[in-house]
Amino acid sequence: MRVLLIHSDYIKYQVKNKTPVAEEIEESYKNGAFEEALVVFSSIEKEDEKNPEAIARNLVAEVKKTNEEVNAEKIVLYPYAHLSSSLGAPKVAVQILKDAEDALKEEGLDVFRVPFGWYKAFEISCKGHPLSELSRNISSDKEEEEKKEKKPS
Amino acid sequence: MRVLLIHSDYIKYQVKNKTPVAEEIEESYKNGAFEEALVVFSSIEKEDEKNPEAIARNLVAEVKKTNEEVNAEKIVLYPYAHLSSSLGAPKVAVQILKDAEDALKEEGLDVFRVPFGWYKAFEISCKGHPLSELSRNISSDKEEEEKKEKKPS
Ligand SMILES: [Mg+2]
Repeated sequence: MRVLLIHSDYIKYQVKNKTPVAEEIEESYKNGAFEEALVVFSSIEKEDEKNPEAIARNLVAEVKKTNEEVNAEKIVLYPYAHLSSSLGAPKVAVQILKDAEDALKEEGLDVFRVPFGWYKAFEISCKGHPLSELSRNISSDKEEEEKKEKKPS
Repeated sequence: MRVLLIHSDYIKYQVKNKTPVAEEIEESYKNGAFEEALVVFSSIEKEDEKNPEAIARNLVAEVKKTNEEVNAEKIVLYPYAHLSSSLGAPKVAVQILKDAEDALKEEGLDVFRVPFGWYKAFEISCKGHPLSELSRNISSDKEEEEKKEKKPS
């Protein structure tokens, strides 16, 4: 799983066309706007199908760790297919994101999960401080997950 | 090279802190705002160091082809380190982006290259139509470049 974590002033989205793998959603999920959010753009990969539970756990750990540093008011899990060339099955992807959503809520965080499988318009404002953009590879391997990258530009 | 092409209503950026690999820039480049732009978020990779000229050429071809479909009013080349775990040398990265900038200008396109190596705040609005978000792997290999991905989230 590859993630891009953006510490944002705000993010807004609006669903547009459905794709063949679109989640069924209620009207109220068709758009959303969130201020002071840590946005977790997420590509679930083929490899993640082997151990989705571990991936969800390591994603939760990574999000918690990052948010301890940036102190966003809320977490927005945003499915994003464009961070990887080797995507996992949509069903697995949705399950990982739902599991992570539940686990982060259990930790007392304010979490919103953006619908999967829709084309979406979005607007985001990235704060621009050194920790406001981070990318991570999340694997099911505990050690692997510790490999950190911190990169500018 | 990995790129994420976003057809945007607008993009704005503001440089913040320098990184050790920051380009020297004039005051006027410290911020920018562009409407109706095709934004090309770009990660130059280790492998691209072998044949930077071919990478620049294939990037230009890809940007032209995408813009023939989306018809943006301008092109914004935006260095973005977070699309790859295997980044190329900054010097090579800047050269590829400069070469692509020059070549796209020679094609008559309105092109702006965002400064390399600075932490930046940015705001973007992605239109949300099916071609408004595309990711591509650009290689120096002609055939490879033809492999297309078109993916929703
Ligand atoms: Mg407009």
